[in-house]
Amino acid sequence: MTVTTQRTIESQCKDAFEASAALGTLSTQVKNDALLAMANAIRQNIPTILEANARDIQNGIDNGLSTALIDRLKLNEERLLGVAGSVEEIVALKDPIGETLTGWKQPNGLEISKIRVPLGVISIIYEARPNVTVDAISLAIKTGNAIVLRGSSSAYESNKALSDVMRAAGESVGISGKAIQLLDDTSREGVQTLIKMDQYLNLVIPRGGAGLIQSVVKNATVPSIETGVGNCHVYVDKDADLEKALPLVLNAKTHRPSVCNSAESLLIHKDIAESFLPKCLQALSDAGVEIKGCASTQALFPSASSASDEDYLTEFLDLVISVKVVDSLDGALSHIHTYGSHHSEAIVSENASSIQSFIDNVDAAAVLVNASTRFTDGGVFGFGAEMGISTQKTHARGPMGLPELTSYKYIVKGNGHIR
Amino acid sequence: MTVTTQRTIESQCKDAFEASAALGTLSTQVKNDALLAMANAIRQNIPTILEANARDIQNGIDNGLSTALIDRLKLNEERLLGVAGSVEEIVALKDPIGETLTGWKQPNGLEISKIRVPLGVISIIYEARPNVTVDAISLAIKTGNAIVLRGSSSAYESNKALSDVMRAAGESVGISGKAIQLLDDTSREGVQTLIKMDQYLNLVIPRGGAGLIQSVVKNATVPSIETGVGNCHVYVDKDADLEKALPLVLNAKTHRPSVCNSAESLLIHKDIAESFLPKCLQALSDAGVEIKGCASTQALFPSASSASDEDYLTEFLDLVISVKVVDSLDGALSHIHTYGSHHSEAIVSENASSIQSFIDNVDAAAVLVNASTRFTDGGVFGFGAEMGISTQKTHARGPMGLPELTSYKYIVKGNGHIR
Repeated sequence: MTVTTQRTIESQCKDAFEASAALGTLSTQVKNDALLAMANAIRQNIPTILEANARDIQNGIDNGLSTALIDRLKLNEERLLGVAGSVEEIVALKDPIGETLTGWKQPNGLEISKIRVPLGVISIIYEARPNVTVDAISLAIKTGNAIVLRGSSSAYESNKALSDVMRAAGESVGISGKAIQLLDDTSREGVQTLIKMDQYLNLVIPRGGAGLIQSVVKNATVPSIETGVGNCHVYVDKDADLEKALPLVLNAKTHRPSVCNSAESLLIHKDIAESFLPKCLQALSDAGVEIKGCASTQALFPSASSASDEDYLTEFLDLVISVKVVDSLDGALSHIHTYGSHHSEAIVSENASSIQSFIDNVDAAAVLVNASTRFTDGGVFGFGAEMGISTQKTHARGPMGLPELTSYKYIVKGNGHIR
Repeated sequence: MTVTTQRTIESQCKDAFEASAALGTLSTQVKNDALLAMANAIRQNIPTILEANARDIQNGIDNGLSTALIDRLKLNEERLLGVAGSVEEIVALKDPIGETLTGWKQPNGLEISKIRVPLGVISIIYEARPNVTVDAISLAIKTGNAIVLRGSSSAYESNKALSDVMRAAGESVGISGKAIQLLDDTSREGVQTLIKMDQYLNLVIPRGGAGLIQSVVKNATVPSIETGVGNCHVYVDKDADLEKALPLVLNAKTHRPSVCNSAESLLIHKDIAESFLPKCLQALSDAGVEIKGCASTQALFPSASSASDEDYLTEFLDLVISVKVVDSLDGALSHIHTYGSHHSEAIVSENASSIQSFIDNVDAAAVLVNASTRFTDGGVFGFGAEMGISTQKTHARGPMGLPELTSYKYIVKGNGHIR
């Protein structure tokens, strides 16, 4: 830690709150100028940022962090150039603030309009990936929000270097430095303090494991959004085109198993189990995937181990899949209803009525039809950037882009109107 | 209480959750048929409902309820006919469910659409107004949501009669009776249990005093929406048309002082204080309003008592107003920023730049220009009905009509697409 005088969480949240009012009235031009200045500043300060990152890496090694975590933490020149480029991509996105969402005139002459405004102050709690610092700051600035970042202590030096560079760049075009707060206090107890700062924060977004998210949902007094727990299923229907189904299942499971939109469970209609299941599970197995299945699965693919109820509930985030043979589309729907996490659910079928029933009855942020679960992503959806993927139904659901970081207000214009 | 075996809050929430899946797929026709059947059933069961209401009234008298509360509780044939009519008005409103909010095709051929779906299960906590029972059930059914009603114990018999009648009418067109749950347990501790039922509830809406709302916001694990605390201001600018200002202030304060969109505070620009303040405060005083003011107010209107900081923070909900003379528009903005509750704020001015600055800088659900604060209302806005007025920024802000009781999901259609 290079911090000598640690600021309190409350004082940093209060500073962000105080900066937020002016942010909401910035022009698109100023916000874009700030983003361009930030991208340039990242490029010009690569050596400083990499030095800070090296300190985090050394601390991580000294503290026995896993190789996987060290790898997530590690920055290099190429990654930083990529990160700077992603900030510039936000410039090209439409500024949602000030947009008139709807407007109408009442019979009494009152003119009512609904216009988009910033939320105010957003806080994000995240793990050891310094690029999230940059994404979160960029999205907040573009939407006129102040941001309070609570990164992992293991990435503190990298996050501090990046946020310092971006804050200074913002200040160079007139944006208050108070709008970008990286919490000095990265203690575990600090999270509990942060999520009760409803006096100053309008939204808190936890990005991390199920434990963090549940703790935030249970204890936050600030409105929060559950993100990223994805126990996603692929259902291969009796009317599936099996030529499509095989590569799709492989892609959904193995393309990037550690992310939330990867498939964790495969449901296969009994009518095609004999023709499809052995071939599909062999291909998964050949790709290094461990198979856990129901009794019918094991009968057709004996090297599968037995799947428990707990397995069906588990987001493996690894090369492991649970498999179940179901009697019908309803059987698949019922399984997803019981075990799913409302993130992304896919059906492979050529039957229009089965597809429609799946769409209507699956309760998830995204329902994918003959497409891999991996497509649920802000970038893939064309949002340009993403602050996380919401698995709850209020405020925002699915990938959260710029509009999901905003609110609205009503403007009512009269001419001395009274009731 | 006519209940002999009291169901637990958990069992009632679970029943609502189980009914919710089927509700989301009901056609508009079935939902409208249910609403019409409910309206008819209310009309046909007026004697039964009034008998139940009479039991509540008698209990209230026995328990020493205030006359005001007894009055809010009291139903009669005319009120019930009005309530039945309001259910029929919901039929005419557009069904938001199934609406395609947006849709596009990605360069890779994926077709993405965003469609509106119900939230699932909504819970509402409210005080002794039986008509809220009817409104909440109607809005929930129209939006395909199950509803868990936690009414006041003092209105239990009335609420039970109304919800029983409406549930039976819904069942007559095929809607599960489980979709409409009036909690048997109306204990104070029960509220704490209810707001932690995140396994079954998607949203909880507290409607009541600031104490209830704060308790829900602090303790709920279910996403909640703050409603209805309205410490609303009218700011009379130096460039106000005083002919408009006087009736507007009177209307905002005295039209219906007990509701959340009434004005509680009057801010007057110093340049017009001499010409406007005495006349305006005299008119308020003549209308029975008690005046509490700053030193400048008292100098110009000696019968005003002194306003404390506490007074400026208070939502009187009564014929009382706090008054302050401000030096400038900025002074008004700063006062509203410090004391306002983000509900409704009005400016009276003919100066376009002052008006725009007020619109841009006031952080409230509704900003009213030359119009009474009393216009912030779902019915007035043309929403047809309202589930409350949100004073928070996430999910819904301002009057909540049908769309505010919904969520959405993404449908992604491919042809074997993989990443």
